[in-house]
Amino acid sequence: MEFSSKFIENAVNEISNLPGIGKKSALRLVLFLLKQPESQSLNLANAISQMRLNVNFCSNCHNISDVDICEICINPRRDKSIICVVEDIRDVMAIEKTSSFNGIYHVLGGKISPLDGIGPDELNIDSLVEKVQTNQIKEVIFALSTTMEGDTTNFYIFRRISDYDIITSTIARGISVGDDLEYTDEITLGRSITDRIPFENSLKK
Amino acid sequence: MEFSSKFIENAVNEISNLPGIGKKSALRLVLFLLKQPESQSLNLANAISQMRLNVNFCSNCHNISDVDICEICINPRRDKSIICVVEDIRDVMAIEKTSSFNGIYHVLGGKISPLDGIGPDELNIDSLVEKVQTNQIKEVIFALSTTMEGDTTNFYIFRRISDYDIITSTIARGISVGDDLEYTDEITLGRSITDRIPFENSLKK
Repeated sequence: MEFSSKFIENAVNEISNLPGIGKKSALRLVLFLLKQPESQSLNLANAISQMRLNVNFCSNCHNISDVDICEICINPRRDKSIICVVEDIRDVMAIEKTSSFNGIYHVLGGKISPLDGIGPDELNIDSLVEKVQTNQIKEVIFALSTTMEGDTTNFYIFRRISDYDIITSTIARGISVGDDLEYTDEITLGRSITDRIPFENSLKK
Repeated sequence: MEFSSKFIENAVNEISNLPGIGKKSALRLVLFLLKQPESQSLNLANAISQMRLNVNFCSNCHNISDVDICEICINPRRDKSIICVVEDIRDVMAIEKTSSFNGIYHVLGGKISPLDGIGPDELNIDSLVEKVQTNQIKEVIFALSTTMEGDTTNFYIFRRISDYDIITSTIARGISVGDDLEYTDEITLGRSITDRIPFENSLKK
């Protein structure tokens, strides 16, 4: 694309570096910003740079937080002996919304993915193993996505902590509540049969 | 959504003010930026604010330009007596790419759209009429999209300049080059028959 202004060109190039946004979409966003009051662009620019410069990670669970220890880790009513291992902050937000979990989290910051150059050392795995070694941990729950990378990461961590006297579990895979059996894919349906639970347990909800 | 950091919350809110980007996509972009070097976010923020603060419009054709008169208007090899009326900079870029037009442009900055609160006064229409009144204009080509708003804008401008001794034309609507007749919508096919051209003209390309 040839631009008649180097400011436009520069903005389009930077915006199209974001994932899922091409040059055409970036130009559309730039033209939108030009029609809005100047303050909107300045607020947007300011919010992005402030976010990148000031964001902090909880030194205990690696969740994003403005303070040194995040709200969840510092909450005295949460059970510190149960750790739920997740990939990133979005998973923390999703699980928190269910109000079904009263333990604390451990945010890995990604999944092991050799193709993308992400090995165990790039993730917050050592600090999890340390917690298991030194703290009073009763249970580690794996809550990664069921992809090849998620399973690899689960298995890698499992091998490193399986010698310690803790329970390891993984969140249940099965048919979504409200879904029809006939439209469920075979792998999910198969796992829901293999991983069946005592009927009386399902009545507790 | 509840965020564990007000910096993240602020950035997500500002990004999701952009058209076509919701809160979830905004959070995905923020997490992407957090994984990239700090410089990427700072460059992005800087490019956006610089673009908004410094961008200029050509005082002749209202195209976006870093200088007072844009490259197209200042080019002595372009025919200043033929004006192509377009909606925004994207249309200029699209027509320039074809290398089929040697006149100059007039960028309206939008279309008449009462539902969005855009009347003729919000667009660069008066300056077009002035050009027609005072300059040596031979032809005005309408190149707006064929929507209700585009047609309304075309007709409004046509009424205001039809008293002057100029040619007014509109770009041809018809079947795209390479398209099958049977898959073309009825309105386009109908117009391509009504607006048929002498066969020998089609051989000139």
